Amino acid sequence: MSEFQLIANYFNQPSLTSVGEIPAEIGIGDDCALLSIPEQQRLAVSIDTLVADVHFPAEAAAEQIGYRALAVSVSDLAAMGATPSWFTLALTLPEANEYWLAEFAKGLSLAASQFGIRLIGGDTTKGPLTISIQVQGMVSARHAMLRSNAKVGDHIYVSGTLGDAAAALDYVIPQPTLAAANENSSVAYLYQRYFQPEPRLALGKQLAALGVNCAIDISDGLLADLGHILSASAKVGPCLGAQIDLTDLPISKALMSHTDKARATSLALTGGDDYELCFTVPADLIQQLSPLIEAGEITLIGHITAQPGIVDNLGQPVMVACSGYQHF
Amino acid sequence: MSEFQLIANYFNQPSLTSVGEIPAEIGIGDDCALLSIPEQQRLAVSIDTLVADVHFPAEAAAEQIGYRALAVSVSDLAAMGATPSWFTLALTLPEANEYWLAEFAKGLSLAASQFGIRLIGGDTTKGPLTISIQVQGMVSARHAMLRSNAKVGDHIYVSGTLGDAAAALDYVIPQPTLAAANENSSVAYLYQRYFQPEPRLALGKQLAALGVNCAIDISDGLLADLGHILSASAKVGPCLGAQIDLTDLPISKALMSHTDKARATSLALTGGDDYELCFTVPADLIQQLSPLIEAGEITLIGHITAQPGIVDNLGQPVMVACSGYQHF
Repeated sequence: MSEFQLIANYFNQPSLTSVGEIPAEIGIGDDCALLSIPEQQRLAVSIDTLVADVHFPAEAAAEQIGYRALAVSVSDLAAMGATPSWFTLALTLPEANEYWLAEFAKGLSLAASQFGIRLIGGDTTKGPLTISIQVQGMVSARHAMLRSNAKVGDHIYVSGTLGDAAAALDYVIPQPTLAAANENSSVAYLYQRYFQPEPRLALGKQLAALGVNCAIDISDGLLADLGHILSASAKVGPCLGAQIDLTDLPISKALMSHTDKARATSLALTGGDDYELCFTVPADLIQQLSPLIEAGEITLIGHITAQPGIVDNLGQPVMVACSGYQHF
Repeated sequence: MSEFQLIANYFNQPSLTSVGEIPAEIGIGDDCALLSIPEQQRLAVSIDTLVADVHFPAEAAAEQIGYRALAVSVSDLAAMGATPSWFTLALTLPEANEYWLAEFAKGLSLAASQFGIRLIGGDTTKGPLTISIQVQGMVSARHAMLRSNAKVGDHIYVSGTLGDAAAALDYVIPQPTLAAANENSSVAYLYQRYFQPEPRLALGKQLAALGVNCAIDISDGLLADLGHILSASAKVGPCLGAQIDLTDLPISKALMSHTDKARATSLALTGGDDYELCFTVPADLIQQLSPLIEAGEITLIGHITAQPGIVDNLGQPVMVACSGYQHF
């Protein structure tokens, strides 16, 4: 048995293979995993790859890398309103470093237990550090939130605050140390927002149950991801645009203490990696969102228009400088 | 939109997204694909990673890399007796080379159409050339072939011929040119066995329908993969071993014209990458396999014993030199 097959066995531990409430008929150990899906449910699947020094600093703590890799994948399930069930892991490693592996598995286990998702298979290979995770979740056919359901007049909301993770990159790249974080609690907060994103699973399910049917998770930045909603919706209906009020963007105190308003706004518009939800809601549903707004969980930032393009509340095209970090 | 998002769009073409008979409710273009699985069916899933210069020569033709990547993943479905339905692609590329991408997509499309499997999502990232593919297929709950069902007295069969792909590595590594193949038809055959493996989908389904319930695909080499059957079966029952007749191993004329009997046997035992099936069959079923044996599709190579270890027909442990190529 090769070293890398042994590594695969490393992930065959209950903290990964027995978490969550949904068993697999066959999990790790055969040519395929075998899954049973109730007929009224749909299986939601999404695959994401994280490459060292592109999506995270290779020198970051392995536990943080493991946690973050699963969290960003699970975020795609949150955006559909789905409940996580199973994941597979394709891990490519330059060498079999036991300490690194133990820490990586620790972070992965922590995330798995937090999101209730079970490891059912994978592949471990030798090569440059690359992590591909496919997540599987379940959602009832009539409750799935799609990118393509935005309509003119819909209100646009986002969850949480925006721009935090992008701001953290000033600290984690090129200097992936905890030193800065330890000196400053707002930096610690931003740092955590980057390495421990919180997929908005509960919110996603709550919105889907209320009848919200159009959402995306913000991985590429608000403008880019709202743009994905507009283009996906335009494929099945008329052209759409959006008007957003830049003064309404939710920005954390930590981010404001870290930079000026102009840069904070720019990061909120273009910074990826926050993994908050952006969703659109027709007028007849907005009343039901009041408790979430009052709790500060979601913020109204604008509405869908019939004019293509994204403009501010003065009708000017929203143009911002690139945040300086290229998220692929 | 970044260059690598554009690449992702590159795969959104009908030759990949509209093949096969099983549509997705939502395919490429949303946060998740959405799949509907009939209640009496099980979803079989498997993820495989191919790393450049570990699993294939980086300089190989992109069309061959694309074809092979999907074929080796689909082979895991064949080993379960499953019917391919959908796949996702996580492609990491060092640069956006349009010619390479067009050729890669061509090979992928060819394989997709051959195996009847549809692309439903993926992720394209910048980094060292790495391909992760997750395949999904369907199998009825009572027909899935598992590694863990071998019993003492079962006959052991393999499909096709063994050792061909491993022999081809003499030509494709380190010299990935077609020159040698063009000069010699047996080399051309071996070369094709490496780059165009044929997942034994029809055979897998036929065996499963006959009641065969224990199989694996040979990706790591016969000894290693038969070993996986023995250890998986021993986890749910008594310890097992195998006796195989080395003179019965199916070896192609091409391989015999390329090397001597001793090396051919060694390659047949340890060479990976053939993607043939190895399966075990209880005595009451073997009569039904006669047509497959007579057609030369499968070969009886030995039987399952109660003594741990793999021995030859004289009872000597089967020990062979490594084939020289480390398949992870």
